[in-house]
Amino acid sequence: MFEKFFSQRIKNTPSSFIREILKVTQKPEIISFAGGLPNPISFPQEELKVSMNRIATKYGDKIYQYSTTMGLDSLREYIVERYKKIWNMNIDIDNVIITTGSQQALDLIGKVFVNEGDKVMVEKPSYLGLLQTFCMYRADFIQTKLNDDGLDIEELKKVLKEQKPKVAYLIPNFQNPTGLTYTKENRKLVFEAIKDEDMILIQDDPYGELRFEEGERIPYIGLNESEKNIYLGSFSKIVTPGMRLGYIIANKEIIKMLETAKQASDLHSNIFGQYLISDYLYNNDLDKHIEKIKKLYKTQAGAMISAMEEYFPKNIKFTHPKGGMFSWVTIPEDKAVLDLFDKAIAKKVAFVPGHPFYVNPKKVNTLRLNYTNADCDTIKEGIKRLAQALDEI
Amino acid sequence: MFEKFFSQRIKNTPSSFIREILKVTQKPEIISFAGGLPNPISFPQEELKVSMNRIATKYGDKIYQYSTTMGLDSLREYIVERYKKIWNMNIDIDNVIITTGSQQALDLIGKVFVNEGDKVMVEKPSYLGLLQTFCMYRADFIQTKLNDDGLDIEELKKVLKEQKPKVAYLIPNFQNPTGLTYTKENRKLVFEAIKDEDMILIQDDPYGELRFEEGERIPYIGLNESEKNIYLGSFSKIVTPGMRLGYIIANKEIIKMLETAKQASDLHSNIFGQYLISDYLYNNDLDKHIEKIKKLYKTQAGAMISAMEEYFPKNIKFTHPKGGMFSWVTIPEDKAVLDLFDKAIAKKVAFVPGHPFYVNPKKVNTLRLNYTNADCDTIKEGIKRLAQALDEI
Repeated sequence: MFEKFFSQRIKNTPSSFIREILKVTQKPEIISFAGGLPNPISFPQEELKVSMNRIATKYGDKIYQYSTTMGLDSLREYIVERYKKIWNMNIDIDNVIITTGSQQALDLIGKVFVNEGDKVMVEKPSYLGLLQTFCMYRADFIQTKLNDDGLDIEELKKVLKEQKPKVAYLIPNFQNPTGLTYTKENRKLVFEAIKDEDMILIQDDPYGELRFEEGERIPYIGLNESEKNIYLGSFSKIVTPGMRLGYIIANKEIIKMLETAKQASDLHSNIFGQYLISDYLYNNDLDKHIEKIKKLYKTQAGAMISAMEEYFPKNIKFTHPKGGMFSWVTIPEDKAVLDLFDKAIAKKVAFVPGHPFYVNPKKVNTLRLNYTNADCDTIKEGIKRLAQALDEI
Repeated sequence: MFEKFFSQRIKNTPSSFIREILKVTQKPEIISFAGGLPNPISFPQEELKVSMNRIATKYGDKIYQYSTTMGLDSLREYIVERYKKIWNMNIDIDNVIITTGSQQALDLIGKVFVNEGDKVMVEKPSYLGLLQTFCMYRADFIQTKLNDDGLDIEELKKVLKEQKPKVAYLIPNFQNPTGLTYTKENRKLVFEAIKDEDMILIQDDPYGELRFEEGERIPYIGLNESEKNIYLGSFSKIVTPGMRLGYIIANKEIIKMLETAKQASDLHSNIFGQYLISDYLYNNDLDKHIEKIKKLYKTQAGAMISAMEEYFPKNIKFTHPKGGMFSWVTIPEDKAVLDLFDKAIAKKVAFVPGHPFYVNPKKVNTLRLNYTNADCDTIKEGIKRLAQALDEI
């Protein structure tokens, strides 16, 4: 009835495949590896309860009033200090804007940079939330192959030369959906290839803090060497996603434009949540808290990998993530993952078929598994069921 | 340096004039009538503190986890019941989507309906937040004159006939910026004029609950008579704006599209805030709370109107709002309001010049005054200063 009123952009934007799948898989009898939910252990509930009572006393009506678009100064200051400490970044709070989760960061960046038809380079596969949002701004996507060690350098060079993308969007740490991480060497080669291009590089990093296997943090691509770099971060995976708090770090001229886009999008992010998270961060040891999350995710990832090694047919490939929340499974090329999905649902186990992570999915033989939101026994049982489904296709 | 990267939409969108002005007027020595801040008395702080501790105990990790895009069921149910009770609307929760404040509602509606160049009819003057957001989607605005009793019917008919707008955006109750309210008769005439048009009608109503002068609630335009009606509401002016919670009521087909747009915009609104407000609403008497706010605003509005009557030169016109938060002042046509602004700032009193409320402001002789965020003595002193500034132009 309303078809004629709807905009081209919304008609061309698919509803989130995952959010639709989640509706199917929320039945209690189904073991779901489909979502991307952090384990509730990552929410410091007792400490947050202390903080909420403290801010209610300390700041009074300020925690309920309208506030600034850029975000709470103390929270931005915390981010500045953390990035200075870890990455030696030369930034101040005017390089930081608070967003309503990382998803809004993507929306604001789309608003500020993407004209209809602008070329945007993403990994193959890439994060579906970015694809959905930039689709809304009618981006022309180019997907560059992601290997076990990072971006495929030959393909990258070809894309840069032939397509001249205006924006690139990468997730270098424990990528969603693959769980892969770019090596230090790969990052150097990527930066070598892009540094003289007229291209904005967005590095989205919601999982970077969650390295549970040995190894050091690997610096961002072109860290402290490019004004065209934009960094995204989030409190969703290390404190709470329900509060919807993320942030963007960028050159001040870019932040200024993002601020205008944010004024028009929601005026400002929930200020109560900003006071709450800020108070929590200044009064607790975040790194100690993160250690607890990592220990748990290491166990859960281990349970899933072991079970896959034990039960999956030998022709099934899967990634071995060193951090983050996902493993990426590849079934034989002549099999269709949607057939597997039907068999799996019949056996009461769910996952996300690879489709929404590709720009033009056709024959898809990949799928994403999440291991952070089930206990080890459940993970083992779910993988057993999935192995049975694999036998049937 | 980044000019070449920025999108056309952001280059064409002005930074919010008000938010820029607020930066100037936040000095403590300035009496500011510029903002649109609710009085903190409208935040039920003690009750919210009780609610936050209750939800932390009752719902545990749910208040911190990812949640659904449509919003918390109990909050949507509350809205359904309230609109059924007050307006006899035949709706259920699938007609309601929670938004990150009303500003996001405007952004989502822009995303879903506005193609570049689509004609959008707004009042003259109109809410600047809408103008900024729809500007982002490259709307072609038509402004229709707003009179003391509502929309100018002759002009409306002409616009409908000659311009065929796809979307109309109106604020029928205690409008921002004018404080004006459409009479019952005017609403009937407006609906008579538009009901057979192919046009979506958005009625934004953040202030409708705040009628502090005698008189009844006046039904929306075409209430329960048009599927093309979209209603916007907000908890910002009656509970807390800092939580950023608003909502859209519309036909389910429209809500479905808004849901997709919201997935791409921020996944979902802060779920802690939704639990908090929902708990507050079910455990307290909202209407009793609203009575308190109205009593205060009546006093504050009265203080401003009396002071303007006493101190302003007789050739200055101003509206007498029966509710809401603003009065709209018109100075003689041969005077420029920006000259007045400079004189006023010199005298340490601030307001919002009329410019951002017009689509193509040229010679502007209007201004907006807010009375909800200062006590009566301060209001009186501020109006005195403004009267002196008026004498100097």
